[in-house]
Amino acid sequence: MTSCALVCGAGCGERIPWLSTSPRTTCARCGELLDVKQDLTAVAAERAATWHTRFEARLRVGVGADASGVWSKREWVLPGLAEESIVTLGEGRTPLVPAPRLGAILGVPDLWIKQCGQSLTGSFKDLGMTVLVSAVVALRRAGAPIRAVLCASTGDTSAALAAYAAAADLPAIVLLPNAKITTAQLLQPLAHGALVLALQTDFDGCMSVVRELVERSPLASQLYLANSMNPLRIEGQKTAALEICEQLSWTAPDWIALPGGNLGNTAATSAGLEIAEASGLIARHTRLLVGQASAADPLARAAESGFEKFEAREAGATAASAIRIGNPVSVRRAIRALQRCGGTAESVTEDELGRAAAEADRTGLYVCPQTAVALAAVGKAARRGVVGAKDRVVVLATAHGLKFSEFKAAYHEGRLAGAASRRANAPIEVTATVDAAQSAIARYLEASDTRRLSIPSPLSNSL
Amino acid sequence: MTSCALVCGAGCGERIPWLSTSPRTTCARCGELLDVKQDLTAVAAERAATWHTRFEARLRVGVGADASGVWSKREWVLPGLAEESIVTLGEGRTPLVPAPRLGAILGVPDLWIKQCGQSLTGSFKDLGMTVLVSAVVALRRAGAPIRAVLCASTGDTSAALAAYAAAADLPAIVLLPNAKITTAQLLQPLAHGALVLALQTDFDGCMSVVRELVERSPLASQLYLANSMNPLRIEGQKTAALEICEQLSWTAPDWIALPGGNLGNTAATSAGLEIAEASGLIARHTRLLVGQASAADPLARAAESGFEKFEAREAGATAASAIRIGNPVSVRRAIRALQRCGGTAESVTEDELGRAAAEADRTGLYVCPQTAVALAAVGKAARRGVVGAKDRVVVLATAHGLKFSEFKAAYHEGRLAGAASRRANAPIEVTATVDAAQSAIARYLEASDTRRLSIPSPLSNSL
Repeated sequence: MTSCALVCGAGCGERIPWLSTSPRTTCARCGELLDVKQDLTAVAAERAATWHTRFEARLRVGVGADASGVWSKREWVLPGLAEESIVTLGEGRTPLVPAPRLGAILGVPDLWIKQCGQSLTGSFKDLGMTVLVSAVVALRRAGAPIRAVLCASTGDTSAALAAYAAAADLPAIVLLPNAKITTAQLLQPLAHGALVLALQTDFDGCMSVVRELVERSPLASQLYLANSMNPLRIEGQKTAALEICEQLSWTAPDWIALPGGNLGNTAATSAGLEIAEASGLIARHTRLLVGQASAADPLARAAESGFEKFEAREAGATAASAIRIGNPVSVRRAIRALQRCGGTAESVTEDELGRAAAEADRTGLYVCPQTAVALAAVGKAARRGVVGAKDRVVVLATAHGLKFSEFKAAYHEGRLAGAASRRANAPIEVTATVDAAQSAIARYLEASDTRRLSIPSPLSNSL
Repeated sequence: MTSCALVCGAGCGERIPWLSTSPRTTCARCGELLDVKQDLTAVAAERAATWHTRFEARLRVGVGADASGVWSKREWVLPGLAEESIVTLGEGRTPLVPAPRLGAILGVPDLWIKQCGQSLTGSFKDLGMTVLVSAVVALRRAGAPIRAVLCASTGDTSAALAAYAAAADLPAIVLLPNAKITTAQLLQPLAHGALVLALQTDFDGCMSVVRELVERSPLASQLYLANSMNPLRIEGQKTAALEICEQLSWTAPDWIALPGGNLGNTAATSAGLEIAEASGLIARHTRLLVGQASAADPLARAAESGFEKFEAREAGATAASAIRIGNPVSVRRAIRALQRCGGTAESVTEDELGRAAAEADRTGLYVCPQTAVALAAVGKAARRGVVGAKDRVVVLATAHGLKFSEFKAAYHEGRLAGAASRRANAPIEVTATVDAAQSAIARYLEASDTRRLSIPSPLSNSL
């Protein structure tokens, strides 16, 4: 039977159960972040065929925990969690779509997109939050005095936390810097009924108030921290890698490419591949490629030294706002993962990410700027020969393009900072006559024909 | 072997193959819209167990046509379509989520939500457009001179058409009224590379230019009409009803509730139930409940006469902008469907739809205003005793809430026309001290406790 525990990330030897009446996210001995440690020996002790049959049977189930991409792998996610504690909103089970035409442009025709943004809150964060909130339900049942979940966030994290807390009828609290508030950004946590506190400080200031609240305030034991230092979220996020392999009939791709900010998802993807390999379901050879915006690329800079040295840096402005992070929380976990798989990181300019998004959208995708960073990184790595022209590459699309309308508007209106908008498209005003419409259409059709003739052997998305 | 044909909706007897070198969407004899007629005898000729096994086997497939919610039912969707013509982006296979807490508020605890908005373009229209665009690929291969697909639309239809056309590398053209243009509204078709023509006229003016173009212009045979009069889209949209039944282990719910504008989706849902019944996979008893905004409720008014008389009306402003339609294209198909199943239609005020959305979001959903209309309709029908307190009700969520940020912002800022915003939530500004944060949190926790105690036996979304 599988199991897991929390262990000290610094390797001091501390090991505690995840289910406890006084839950922790840092090591009591040395203060380091805790990691979830799965018992891989127990995973390996079952035959691969048994895991295969079990997971395949759940694919047929239409509702409930088995129909969740996360909880259908529950023995590998949070073993020991009682099924009645699971809070699921149907997360995971997102499409894996071939993108050969975009791949041909990037130099890797065997390109696939894992659509993690096609979800309840529009980002991959749902995968982690279903685990965190379910764990809180279990902790409360076990007697922990938790009354609310809490995070400091201006983006996807707060949306996912608030949604899953609402589903569990659990109070959620979001702290964020006052200066950055627009209702549009906050609509998701507000709509989900969270308490949204706008603090007169910056993001670091919010984080220090959060830490005080959960460590030393009178409410400390009543508030559960949901920020990315919480290791339980990684266990849910790793199921995206599991689903990719499962969708490809349990064959691992040569590369999984993804955007990197706080780097928790890099650690999660590695953890997913690791447990799938331990089970015998895949032969592990997948390498990870992390794309970073050049304004916030400490990991890509560290790649130049083979990750021997890492330096945090101040993050500058980038359209890929969700990965504007200069000092990533999970850098240690991520570097370990990249070293183990022979992975690497690439830095991508604003112009490159803008162009990658525009090219992707013209083949039927609708990518967020972070996913565009990963796509552009694939193109660069292919040009440098790091990724081979025949390699199978899966890009983790981390959020829905619908969450980044301002990015798309800026690109197509030619006002995206640092980007040339060469693939911009704009509406054409015409008088309301058939003749006027007809001549505009005729010009467009001619241009489309010319464009298609100029692309050598365009591959189609048809199957 | 299953098959389908296009037949005259007026019943004049005209019957033509869908695959033709000169495709039509209206009857050549009498000008009436064409319907897709499936050969239900052929569906019934196979054993239910055979269909069951075939569809179940495809649930295990991770990529390609079998992994699409639409094309995994291809024998019932567009029989005769060669597999190499299929253009899929992983549409369908969306979650079916229990919503017992919201259901308790509405008076129907056995409430479920079918999340059709968790898709590539954020609306259920993807289901129809994969069929239409795949058909165009097949028609071109058969020798039809089609060079582009075309629609008049300001919303979800143009987004889905442009996305699937981009995936097929097929030119797409969108016509819309100049006055209504904002880049944000048009970002999806623009990003997907469609030709977006802004005409100096209103929506009806656009439609008449479109009709001229496809019926009488020199380009007529080169342009394929994708508006909702095209019956092929209904064949894709009906798979949402098929998936609901499949997810519930091939049991049909008592009710399927959905928003009604042009009413194509009402016809589609009925068609899905009809073919599932013909196959023997379900015993048919599902009734349809159509929600309409009171500003645009010709069908709900017709319900008062048992649908004996129907009068088109001028549609007024409503937050449910996607169903602001006074003269629905598919009204004939929809009334036939409602009469057959004993279904009905309910009219919902702006205050009722605003409140339904707010209540839904506070249980972990994130609904669009149209879905809110369907939810409010369920509540009203339950209060009137039309829907029973023990009935199983599935609401078709037709779009992602992320597409309707302005609606949510208006509600939570107390400026949604006609709505009282009693469940509005707003950020609270506090100084950046632990004390300030702590007292705000303490007040929120107390209020949460009080609220929970005041709801009799709150059901949880936990499974």
